[in-house]
Amino acid sequence: MTHRHMTPLDNRLNFSGGPGALPGHVLSQIQESILAVPGVGLSVLGISHRSDWFAAVVSELEDNIRTLLGLPDDYHVLFLQGGATQQFSMIPMTLLHGKTTPAEYLHSGYWSGKALAEAGREGPSRVIWSGEDGGFRRLPGNDELSFSQDAAYLHYVSNETVEGLQFHRVLGRDDVPRVCDMSSDFLSQPCKADRFSLIYAHAQKNIGPAGVTVVLVRDALLKNARTDLPGFLDYRSHIEAHSVFNTPPVFAIYVVLLITRWLLNEIGGLARMADLNRDKAELMYRMLDTSDGFYRGRADAGDRSRMNATFNLASPDMEKRFLAEAEAAGFSGLAGHRSTGGIRASLYNGLELSAVEELAGFMEDFRIQCTKRRVSGAA
Amino acid sequence: MTHRHMTPLDNRLNFSGGPGALPGHVLSQIQESILAVPGVGLSVLGISHRSDWFAAVVSELEDNIRTLLGLPDDYHVLFLQGGATQQFSMIPMTLLHGKTTPAEYLHSGYWSGKALAEAGREGPSRVIWSGEDGGFRRLPGNDELSFSQDAAYLHYVSNETVEGLQFHRVLGRDDVPRVCDMSSDFLSQPCKADRFSLIYAHAQKNIGPAGVTVVLVRDALLKNARTDLPGFLDYRSHIEAHSVFNTPPVFAIYVVLLITRWLLNEIGGLARMADLNRDKAELMYRMLDTSDGFYRGRADAGDRSRMNATFNLASPDMEKRFLAEAEAAGFSGLAGHRSTGGIRASLYNGLELSAVEELAGFMEDFRIQCTKRRVSGAA
Repeated sequence: MTHRHMTPLDNRLNFSGGPGALPGHVLSQIQESILAVPGVGLSVLGISHRSDWFAAVVSELEDNIRTLLGLPDDYHVLFLQGGATQQFSMIPMTLLHGKTTPAEYLHSGYWSGKALAEAGREGPSRVIWSGEDGGFRRLPGNDELSFSQDAAYLHYVSNETVEGLQFHRVLGRDDVPRVCDMSSDFLSQPCKADRFSLIYAHAQKNIGPAGVTVVLVRDALLKNARTDLPGFLDYRSHIEAHSVFNTPPVFAIYVVLLITRWLLNEIGGLARMADLNRDKAELMYRMLDTSDGFYRGRADAGDRSRMNATFNLASPDMEKRFLAEAEAAGFSGLAGHRSTGGIRASLYNGLELSAVEELAGFMEDFRIQCTKRRVSGAA
Repeated sequence: MTHRHMTPLDNRLNFSGGPGALPGHVLSQIQESILAVPGVGLSVLGISHRSDWFAAVVSELEDNIRTLLGLPDDYHVLFLQGGATQQFSMIPMTLLHGKTTPAEYLHSGYWSGKALAEAGREGPSRVIWSGEDGGFRRLPGNDELSFSQDAAYLHYVSNETVEGLQFHRVLGRDDVPRVCDMSSDFLSQPCKADRFSLIYAHAQKNIGPAGVTVVLVRDALLKNARTDLPGFLDYRSHIEAHSVFNTPPVFAIYVVLLITRWLLNEIGGLARMADLNRDKAELMYRMLDTSDGFYRGRADAGDRSRMNATFNLASPDMEKRFLAEAEAAGFSGLAGHRSTGGIRASLYNGLELSAVEELAGFMEDFRIQCTKRRVSGAA
């Protein structure tokens, strides 16, 4: 069994589905800012959201996101509260309420199902494909999808965090607004942002702590949108106020800024980040595929997520033992989502390749140990 | 002029209206948790909200708030997103929508005006007193208030942060639900919580960073409440899920836990906290009242806030000079709210008496300097 040597400052390795691991480089900067932000002399937790400092934080963060994604000028960049869950409602509240033409939703897993349920509360929606009968183990091919020209919008989830499924292409038609929940792969790779009308992503996978959600919305999408919503549910009030409509989560936004600086300056952009994430995922899936069926990947090979590798062992008992031994060896957060069980290794931006190598080493040792035991038990 | 000696670890003194100063004792604990929470070995920014650790955080925090306030068992304690602004809407959405009997609102300042405006969007409301004509410089006496027996509820703001006005008594009738925005004096003193049906307070004044809002709600208030709201806007879904309906702001909630531990174990409870806050406010107001009219308190003496001392100097030019010199001397956040101008010294829980003494010293020096200059100018 691999033994990890832990010191008080040595974090356990975090494979949690979210909130996920943040890069150590950024954690040190955050730590410093808790007592006093350099050049400001105040704790980041007690700086006014109306200060020049915070206006500069929001402005630089917006610029960094535009730079990282090559985002055109006709998009607004917003930092909101309420997570993806609030977006599940805000989107149909804004775009579907009182309409007769349905929006089209893909039902490809747990989170797209949540989005769909909230849409149904606000206006007409139509499921154009569902993976529910197949237990959400694969995504649809292009030949299974037919998008209507007159849909209010198309909604899908780019990466299904729970099931470990990821679309490796852009879906839909260019003449219907694409709305996409990128919560679990936002800024993990280039995403052709300009092909979407609205992208949303909570921070707690790849880009920060829980408590802030990034929304990119094309100005044209809101042209004929509903105008009778309370300010905090109206994208336009947040646009007008530059994300300071009411007190925003200052600390969480500052952390996202530090992450974008890290992506730009330390990593070198999203293409490079994608390479690093692909390396981690390939290592992980190679481990599963060469385990003689000991570890069984959950998702169809072509639809596998680079963010969340989901798999099973031979029985729930084996999985329980695996999780207990992994936890004891310093690998945290490997239990699958409560709706599916099994194992899930989340490989977000902040997790280094070396952590996946350590996990792979542990998994190999665990497999050999169990196989030997089985052989000697049979002898 | 008082000179403050600053070291890199010496925060500037934070008199901001919010986010406000947090106690140094707690900042050190937070700092430690950024790399690894003691006993957990993971950064507080990357621990799952479904972990046993976080369930224990929420549970202990709830207990601490119950203990601090002597809160009866029939209250739910919730930790939500969206700030007081979201509560301005959620309350009338829940309790006023589709009703014919109005809720009663006091319009005692900037923030109660915001709450009132949102109520008007959701259902019938009636203003039972407004301080608008008098520029919100005082609060109503009991003889100016008449509360209806059949009101849906009574809403008021216990401390008007912008104007520096604070109710030093509980308003309303015991047979009409009291709903109170305590954002800027929550846990700064005992508050007779059991006389209210719903109390809400965002964290960023006395109890934590921006990004989490505490709601205390009596179970009976929700008995006949609307049932067709999206989950994130429905108090009951948050109650059922013990504040983990969707990913909560884990970090902000953890900080509030640390603050409640500090209140219980270091300060010794809310009566003691109230004494400390009263001492700070009395020092501040004594400075104003003995300045020969150089500093002019904004609020009527009987309605002065212990949290936000608002005052003016002889002219906007003098105020500008005062703010510039204060900033240079290490006193931060003293500018009044953008809607009123003037000066505001916010004296939240986290600010120590010694900071107010330093400010008072600075103000005394500034006054003497200006008075001398005026005298020599006249000679």
